[in-house]
Amino acid sequence: MTDINERSARARAWFESLRDRICAEFEAIEREAGSDAAFAFTRWNRVQDGDAEADGGGGVQGLMKGKVFEKVGVNVSTVHGSFDPAFAASINGADAENPGFSATGISLVAHMANPHVPAVHMNTRFLVTSKAWFGGGGDLNPPLPYAEDTADFHAAYQAACDRHGADYYERFKKWADEYFYIPHRKVHRGVGGIFYDHLECPDSAAFEANFAFTRDVGEAFLNVYPRLVRRRMDMAWTPEDKLQQLEWRGRYAEFNLVYDRGTLFGLKTGGNIDAILMSLPPEAVWT
Amino acid sequence: MTDINERSARARAWFESLRDRICAEFEAIEREAGSDAAFAFTRWNRVQDGDAEADGGGGVQGLMKGKVFEKVGVNVSTVHGSFDPAFAASINGADAENPGFSATGISLVAHMANPHVPAVHMNTRFLVTSKAWFGGGGDLNPPLPYAEDTADFHAAYQAACDRHGADYYERFKKWADEYFYIPHRKVHRGVGGIFYDHLECPDSAAFEANFAFTRDVGEAFLNVYPRLVRRRMDMAWTPEDKLQQLEWRGRYAEFNLVYDRGTLFGLKTGGNIDAILMSLPPEAVWT
Repeated sequence: MTDINERSARARAWFESLRDRICAEFEAIEREAGSDAAFAFTRWNRVQDGDAEADGGGGVQGLMKGKVFEKVGVNVSTVHGSFDPAFAASINGADAENPGFSATGISLVAHMANPHVPAVHMNTRFLVTSKAWFGGGGDLNPPLPYAEDTADFHAAYQAACDRHGADYYERFKKWADEYFYIPHRKVHRGVGGIFYDHLECPDSAAFEANFAFTRDVGEAFLNVYPRLVRRRMDMAWTPEDKLQQLEWRGRYAEFNLVYDRGTLFGLKTGGNIDAILMSLPPEAVWT
Repeated sequence: MTDINERSARARAWFESLRDRICAEFEAIEREAGSDAAFAFTRWNRVQDGDAEADGGGGVQGLMKGKVFEKVGVNVSTVHGSFDPAFAASINGADAENPGFSATGISLVAHMANPHVPAVHMNTRFLVTSKAWFGGGGDLNPPLPYAEDTADFHAAYQAACDRHGADYYERFKKWADEYFYIPHRKVHRGVGGIFYDHLECPDSAAFEANFAFTRDVGEAFLNVYPRLVRRRMDMAWTPEDKLQQLEWRGRYAEFNLVYDRGTLFGLKTGGNIDAILMSLPPEAVWT
């Protein structure tokens, strides 16, 4: 096994173990709410260049519809192949002559039944072209924001960042603020978090450092988000609260369908539709 | 008044009178269903180059939330100014040196309470750059399609087309089939209709012919759509029917936010958000 293949395999194994721990924790929260909801897992295979026989990798989509988690998707994908030549030029370390890539990552979106409980998004990934790098992040999307929740979410990510780079939190928080923004509404999609990309791994030392950071980002999510859910899940809500949540989800759908690079790339290049669109809210209104 | 200004004024007057007749007919349908719902009209002004004082035209957005019409928007916009130079190159008869334009048009989207009643979209417009042309069309979007409704809708448009050009219906129906398609779902957004553009008016005769066609397209809509609404509005529906409608509306939102050129152009160039997004469904689900 080459160094890079071994590194990809280690990253994948981490994403899968993080997925298992997150799903177990979310199911435990359902138990606490008196529900027996559980994740259902569906495997899908990626098609490269229209050849259904070729091995392009694939993924496992986990989906749970519960009492607390109205709809939560957790995907781990591990894919490889060749970028479309025109698209390759836009990817770090790739071009029309070097379109080969592999990618492994975890992505999660949770839409919550109770409008007091924040929705959330998180994603981390390891990409390999002629270069190799980690990227990822997470952002909190409360329909009814609480300053305490926002502060705790940012504090968890800041602690993870501060262990790995003095400027990480400031840079990656700013990046999230710029990315998770809806220009036509002139509002942010939520209360932010962190977003990072191109943490390049030219050698073993860089890979170990960036992999350790990415693991800490995952641990931070697993540490803080269930805490916020448990803090809010038993609060009573009014019809007005629910309407505010459903309107807010309309903005969320607008962001994902109009601006989100991952969603658009997936939609326009024939990715797995169910996995790509699991991020859309279970219900939304446009009044 | 120049010829072209007089022609734009006549087109505008027609769009406004069509709007008035459509709104009156839709309100009459609400009366028949025992509702006193009525359109509310909101005027908006277009901002050119960030100058709120400049006259860039504007429009009137009509919106009714009724018992039969869960949400119906009817906009008449009459705007003028300069295209962004980079965008101008993509517009018939315009370029960076000739970015001036004016446009007047009517657009309508109806989302219906009863899932047996088809939703509908229609739009006709008169554009002026260094050229002048009409465009427009309409398509039927039934969550629960009935062959009879589809046939009547197409027959109405075919009759309008056949009066003006032997190949109009075939060409404009095909154009609608190509345009109102959701590639990532591999489904059409509805059961089609017609779509036409660039019916150019280099002289008075061409203007009169194309204007007459556009008026007939509007009359065809006003003739057929209320008939379909009255045919279906009293049918009973099940929770399964309603769920099918709400899921189908998710596809409709995906089309408008990911692919519709008018929506994306409006969103990305700072148009009136409420008027642009009135097309989005009042409620949608992604299961």
